[in-house]
Amino acid sequence: MTFAKPLAELISRLERLPGVGPKSAQRLAFHVLRMPEDDVRRLAEALREARESLRLCLVCQNFSAEETCAICQDPRRDPAQICVVGEPRDIAAMERLNEYRGRYHVLHGLLNPMDGIGPEQLKVRELIARLSGPVEEVIVATNPTVEGDATALYLAKQLRPIGIKVTRLAHGMPVGGELDYADTATLLSALEYRREI
Amino acid sequence: MTFAKPLAELISRLERLPGVGPKSAQRLAFHVLRMPEDDVRRLAEALREARESLRLCLVCQNFSAEETCAICQDPRRDPAQICVVGEPRDIAAMERLNEYRGRYHVLHGLLNPMDGIGPEQLKVRELIARLSGPVEEVIVATNPTVEGDATALYLAKQLRPIGIKVTRLAHGMPVGGELDYADTATLLSALEYRREI
Repeated sequence: MTFAKPLAELISRLERLPGVGPKSAQRLAFHVLRMPEDDVRRLAEALREARESLRLCLVCQNFSAEETCAICQDPRRDPAQICVVGEPRDIAAMERLNEYRGRYHVLHGLLNPMDGIGPEQLKVRELIARLSGPVEEVIVATNPTVEGDATALYLAKQLRPIGIKVTRLAHGMPVGGELDYADTATLLSALEYRREI
Repeated sequence: MTFAKPLAELISRLERLPGVGPKSAQRLAFHVLRMPEDDVRRLAEALREARESLRLCLVCQNFSAEETCAICQDPRRDPAQICVVGEPRDIAAMERLNEYRGRYHVLHGLLNPMDGIGPEQLKVRELIARLSGPVEEVIVATNPTVEGDATALYLAKQLRPIGIKVTRLAHGMPVGGELDYADTATLLSALEYRREI
């Protein structure tokens, strides 16, 4: 009764989004009521358009508006290197470096037996299918977590026998961090990954 | 280049919402890509529907799907009392009390000369127009802030000469609070609003 029906409906739809509680759903809804009608229409359109037009790139499994994504179509990207990530957003993190010139592969998750996520639930088969090409190195860039470590280990075991070099992003001290505040696991990794200077 | 165009467009539209930074816009967008297509369509529809169908109630200026809102149409709500609030969301706060049985009036803002918001920018004229009816008391329920206080004072000055009783929500100690932690302004108000027991 308190909110007009279309407003109550909007609030309840917004509440279902991750990280949006009842209070912020209300705040967002009232903001929408005051936005220019055209902006609301464009936001609604962007939601539908993104959901309906995006599919998984046939090669790397990243979200793409076409059959194969822009990176896979780019002849300047080295096909000999494949950087394997857990989620599409991890590609954005790597691309921000402006340093990596190879290709990607998105697993869409990480191994997590407790949640019933095994290799079959990830895009592992699709990765292995790519290895018949000119691939020399697979860089595993999964998160430095239990799941990320397990996934990296699993991939190494699968790919090394085929003669593919499998590397992993280094663990270590974050740049600008203080030894005093580093947790033991990070410090141990930093010691293990140490390099002659 | 990093995100497919429809995805980049969605992220940029989401970023414009209040309280949504670049990181949460990304997280929301990726969530949308994984939502059932039907849910996305309903969310988009709810956005447009709310924005396009809601208008201001001709009487109280609250958002309403009809010419006059459900509360103004309800014959059980006492027309002799009008509770004046700054924003439509404040009505929800009052209604949660399940105690107030009068009507409402939404100013859509509070006096704030620094931001150029004077009585002309608020729904004050619409409030005064209602006072020719059977109104006996106007309860000013604006926030206990500088702007809320200024607005309450302004309304009192305008309405008292017409013979309307103007009251204001009490300032005082929040229930369950500790004297020791109360700020001076709150404590001063609590003293001023004290009542015989």
